[in-house]
Amino acid sequence: MIEITDLRSDTVTKPTPEMLQAMFAAQVGDDVYEEDPTINALEAKAAALFGMEAGLFCPSGTMTNQIAIKVHTGPLTEVICDTTAHIYQYEGGGIASNSYASVALVNGERGKMTPEQVEGNIRPDNLHHPITKLVALENTCNKGGGSYYTIKEIAAISEVCKRNNLALHLDGARVFNALVASGEDSKDYGLYFDSISVCLSKGLGAPVGSVLLGSKAFIKQSRRVRKVFGGGMRQAGYLAAACIYALDNNIDRLKEDHRKAKQMEEVLLQMNYVESVLPVETNIVIFKLNQKYNDAAFINTLAEQNIRASAFGPQMIRFVTHLDVTDEMQEHTLKVLKTL
Amino acid sequence: MIEITDLRSDTVTKPTPEMLQAMFAAQVGDDVYEEDPTINALEAKAAALFGMEAGLFCPSGTMTNQIAIKVHTGPLTEVICDTTAHIYQYEGGGIASNSYASVALVNGERGKMTPEQVEGNIRPDNLHHPITKLVALENTCNKGGGSYYTIKEIAAISEVCKRNNLALHLDGARVFNALVASGEDSKDYGLYFDSISVCLSKGLGAPVGSVLLGSKAFIKQSRRVRKVFGGGMRQAGYLAAACIYALDNNIDRLKEDHRKAKQMEEVLLQMNYVESVLPVETNIVIFKLNQKYNDAAFINTLAEQNIRASAFGPQMIRFVTHLDVTDEMQEHTLKVLKTL
Amino acid sequence: MIEITDLRSDTVTKPTPEMLQAMFAAQVGDDVYEEDPTINALEAKAAALFGMEAGLFCPSGTMTNQIAIKVHTGPLTEVICDTTAHIYQYEGGGIASNSYASVALVNGERGKMTPEQVEGNIRPDNLHHPITKLVALENTCNKGGGSYYTIKEIAAISEVCKRNNLALHLDGARVFNALVASGEDSKDYGLYFDSISVCLSKGLGAPVGSVLLGSKAFIKQSRRVRKVFGGGMRQAGYLAAACIYALDNNIDRLKEDHRKAKQMEEVLLQMNYVESVLPVETNIVIFKLNQKYNDAAFINTLAEQNIRASAFGPQMIRFVTHLDVTDEMQEHTLKVLKTL
Amino acid sequence: MIEITDLRSDTVTKPTPEMLQAMFAAQVGDDVYEEDPTINALEAKAAALFGMEAGLFCPSGTMTNQIAIKVHTGPLTEVICDTTAHIYQYEGGGIASNSYASVALVNGERGKMTPEQVEGNIRPDNLHHPITKLVALENTCNKGGGSYYTIKEIAAISEVCKRNNLALHLDGARVFNALVASGEDSKDYGLYFDSISVCLSKGLGAPVGSVLLGSKAFIKQSRRVRKVFGGGMRQAGYLAAACIYALDNNIDRLKEDHRKAKQMEEVLLQMNYVESVLPVETNIVIFKLNQKYNDAAFINTLAEQNIRASAFGPQMIRFVTHLDVTDEMQEHTLKVLKTL
Repeated sequence: MIEITDLRSDTVTKPTPEMLQAMFAAQVGDDVYEEDPTINALEAKAAALFGMEAGLFCPSGTMTNQIAIKVHTGPLTEVICDTTAHIYQYEGGGIASNSYASVALVNGERGKMTPEQVEGNIRPDNLHHPITKLVALENTCNKGGGSYYTIKEIAAISEVCKRNNLALHLDGARVFNALVASGEDSKDYGLYFDSISVCLSKGLGAPVGSVLLGSKAFIKQSRRVRKVFGGGMRQAGYLAAACIYALDNNIDRLKEDHRKAKQMEEVLLQMNYVESVLPVETNIVIFKLNQKYNDAAFINTLAEQNIRASAFGPQMIRFVTHLDVTDEMQEHTLKVLKTL
Repeated sequence: MIEITDLRSDTVTKPTPEMLQAMFAAQVGDDVYEEDPTINALEAKAAALFGMEAGLFCPSGTMTNQIAIKVHTGPLTEVICDTTAHIYQYEGGGIASNSYASVALVNGERGKMTPEQVEGNIRPDNLHHPITKLVALENTCNKGGGSYYTIKEIAAISEVCKRNNLALHLDGARVFNALVASGEDSKDYGLYFDSISVCLSKGLGAPVGSVLLGSKAFIKQSRRVRKVFGGGMRQAGYLAAACIYALDNNIDRLKEDHRKAKQMEEVLLQMNYVESVLPVETNIVIFKLNQKYNDAAFINTLAEQNIRASAFGPQMIRFVTHLDVTDEMQEHTLKVLKTL
Repeated sequence: MIEITDLRSDTVTKPTPEMLQAMFAAQVGDDVYEEDPTINALEAKAAALFGMEAGLFCPSGTMTNQIAIKVHTGPLTEVICDTTAHIYQYEGGGIASNSYASVALVNGERGKMTPEQVEGNIRPDNLHHPITKLVALENTCNKGGGSYYTIKEIAAISEVCKRNNLALHLDGARVFNALVASGEDSKDYGLYFDSISVCLSKGLGAPVGSVLLGSKAFIKQSRRVRKVFGGGMRQAGYLAAACIYALDNNIDRLKEDHRKAKQMEEVLLQMNYVESVLPVETNIVIFKLNQKYNDAAFINTLAEQNIRASAFGPQMIRFVTHLDVTDEMQEHTLKVLKTL
Repeated sequence: MIEITDLRSDTVTKPTPEMLQAMFAAQVGDDVYEEDPTINALEAKAAALFGMEAGLFCPSGTMTNQIAIKVHTGPLTEVICDTTAHIYQYEGGGIASNSYASVALVNGERGKMTPEQVEGNIRPDNLHHPITKLVALENTCNKGGGSYYTIKEIAAISEVCKRNNLALHLDGARVFNALVASGEDSKDYGLYFDSISVCLSKGLGAPVGSVLLGSKAFIKQSRRVRKVFGGGMRQAGYLAAACIYALDNNIDRLKEDHRKAKQMEEVLLQMNYVESVLPVETNIVIFKLNQKYNDAAFINTLAEQNIRASAFGPQMIRFVTHLDVTDEMQEHTLKVLKTL
């Protein structure tokens, strides 16, 4: 049987035997009563890792983002984010429907806003406008092709936020990819962000789960919002155990995913069916097909070669590398890309 | 070491070794792509059990309820439910904040509304009022002391709904307790309800998970709402496997929980510190202390005897029996209740 | 031509020539820029009358109420009010759709809550519940048959609010009727309420307009909400001039409306088609027909005699007296009521 | 006394004696009961003028816009509009807080979107995205410097909407300026738009009021939303009478406002303190100051010459001409502009 090389997303990974072993050895309890020891340990571990006070385990990164937005904003307020941001593009319109908040959309460079762009989008104090309350970054930037902010860039935006009394949230769906690529220390993030959503079920390979980080007061209010969304689970320590295993074992190896993505970029840049490739910095490869090629047809051609990819807009294709892409799969993929 | 008898809720149960084994053996996939075979199997199984078209796995019963309300209602509309309903009392104000909908509150008998009460609360067509859209039942009724609707009672309310073009939702947090107590067939529910929330992590003993049931169109829209709440999980088949195990193995044994609750009622009725006990019909025992006794102090006294219970309003105490209450624990509890 | 006696509501009054004269002599400006001198004068006058800092002119009492609720509450919070309250019953579900807030409904006596009822409905600090934020009174109580709170009763509820850190709002749709009936001083209200909605287009006879009162900070935020609802008008000083005229000339004469209502009560109490009459305290007469009589048919019978009234629930009829009910109309009405 | 030339907005106009006379003579009734004959006449007149079925009188253009958006959209849906649109920029974040809807923002040419831009922003059917429901145009475009869509351009966008099952709304705050400039027939608008907000208190000179137009079913639902926002007024026929007068007398004369704006443009284009002027097409003049000049200081300098203008972003100034700008004021303004 030929295996499928699934490059649609790094969400598709399945637990290794070792991770599974960790899951089923977990001690559990009722987390609505805050009595699940494994969840409590994960929350504390993730908070410490990022230099934050407290954490909250949630079923998805969409939930951690949406909770953070709801706690920081509200009706008659506004969030500043890049036009490509996941919170705006891929969370179903949740900023408006969950938080009743408006958006100011910045046309950043590959998903990254400058401090000047952020500052230029803060609303003056005038009742015709909503009140700017929150700036949200995404690191790495999914639609930016896995581009990332450095700590220095984050610090500069944080300075704008502090000066203007705005909260700063990080959608860290792939924050470990950014940290591994930049070689920076996660703990420094705690100096700049008011809240961080850390996803464990993407590159890190856990089956389910994200952790929201912030101050104790922020997490207390977030727990309330989690309850109202229905995100309070009972004996979910089995999932948390996989997340702890992922934090302990799967961060460094992201380099391997980045190496594979870089190899794909090199091949694609030489192919005449490719018009352009967003510079590959981490584990995401986004490229544009020549006008002759159609994205849906291209996806189908790949599928015939047992490779799955995502259409990402007209003529746009996205590959994501991850720990279930074996060396054989990588070799196969490169070979196929060269022969299309 | 003396074990704790935890009667706070039937949510506190932990998986048995057999359930854990089933979880461990589960096949999983990415459920956001609808590719988790175990979740798909659970959704189909639960739908068939209740005579509904389709199902959607969610992290909690609060989420299944809140999704259903959001799909059935919306701004400028109203939900009719009993004053004691979980959706109104214990879901953080979600009817208003998630669905922007108003409530018409009925003072039913131990949580149960009559068809006449439902009909009497339908708003006339007048722009001063919201538009009545949904009737929501809870079966069993938690705050009603585990009271339950029979199919006949449900059918009569359904008739009012159909005649007035209203949707009918069931909060089935403890629907299996109702079915075991009444000896009725779950499949008949499909004739009367437009949506059902079935919880697997209460009496049935699964660690996490509820399934929302309805028509295919309803579930399609529910999947969208689940995404926006952040309830879309990835490889959550491990949790679904426990739910399947619970459906296969843990329904009939609810009788045992009911028997234990009844024994508690019998003892309590003879105690002079008890003013009254809500008639015990399933696995919930709610009683009122005499004026001399304070609920917080009573809870503490029980705790000193390694028994945990819930305060449930001024002078009100709730016990819930479940599969982690062993015969020894039951004996110990009855003994303690007699000697307080 | 026989004139219609319109007892449907005190909203139907039309300006007298003197009031019209005042309207068209008004100086106006653009109130969105806060430059309408007549509106500014009205806001200041109304604030002074009730011992409050500032005022905001709005197109209706529904808007002043809905703005106040939106400023005081928000998602995940709750308002305590009587089940019969206008804000809950007759504002289209706006508490949920405008403010995303939940309601705790009190079964008061003819629309009036006791301090104990208010306090008993404050939610404990538990993430399963919304957070109680606001208590709203209505004075007089429309659905209570024009019953009213005295200052002493208001003070006792205010004490509960202050002790529990809750805001206290007054829906003063008919507050002048309450003040005239009790003989109390409007200025004392400022000691107890955080916000007051004063309606000028009911018994006071202005064609359009309500004023929302509160602290300067509250009114600043209310002005923002008014803009978002679309309640910011331009040269509305013409309307404000009528309101000023009404405050100057039409308060004392409410006694006359009360006298007429009392006369109707006396007649109705002797009629065998009447089952009961809510005790008449101000300008509202609500009575219940005997089982033999249908409310719609009764309304039609009155209409044939050129009298218009409102159906107010099954077998319930409401009359409201006001300054357009002349002595001849009153005589005619009493005669008709006696002969039905 | 020297009079102020107020160019801040065409909202600042005050009624002429003739308009005031029309107001004074108005027949009124209670519009909540739909019994105000003057309001009914205005609604019918405006509907006929634009080839629509029905109308609804409201206190402001913000309310007519916000009602239309709320009726056409809702949670989990999206509105496509230009980034500069009034509904997005100047209505306080109401799309999100009133309608819970998301926005797709188009970078059009001076506020005008092309059919291709509209079509390119329609979301694919995917639960990660909100559902596109509404396209909103503004004619003329305020932030576009009074630019306008022709009927042909509107028809092309309407075709995209019809093909994709989207509603099309017009924010007609200055629709008469567009019609006068293009020489087109208002009746043709009815072929293309599902709803139109017509403002009477801008260039047309009525003190207060906008009318929302649409099908009978749309207006019925809009009336409900108006009630919930608190926009239902009682004897507001006095305001409606001024609107009728404005429709009868003040449309054609908008040419005069356009001529004056054009004169200002001609002067400004020759001044060295001006970097650029948006091409003047109607009654709005937006220009950019050279880097040396600050917008706040410039506004102050004008104020010293008794001319009021609006700052409109960094270094941006806006003048709006209207019927209260006399020939003397125009002469004075041109003279001042030449000498700065």
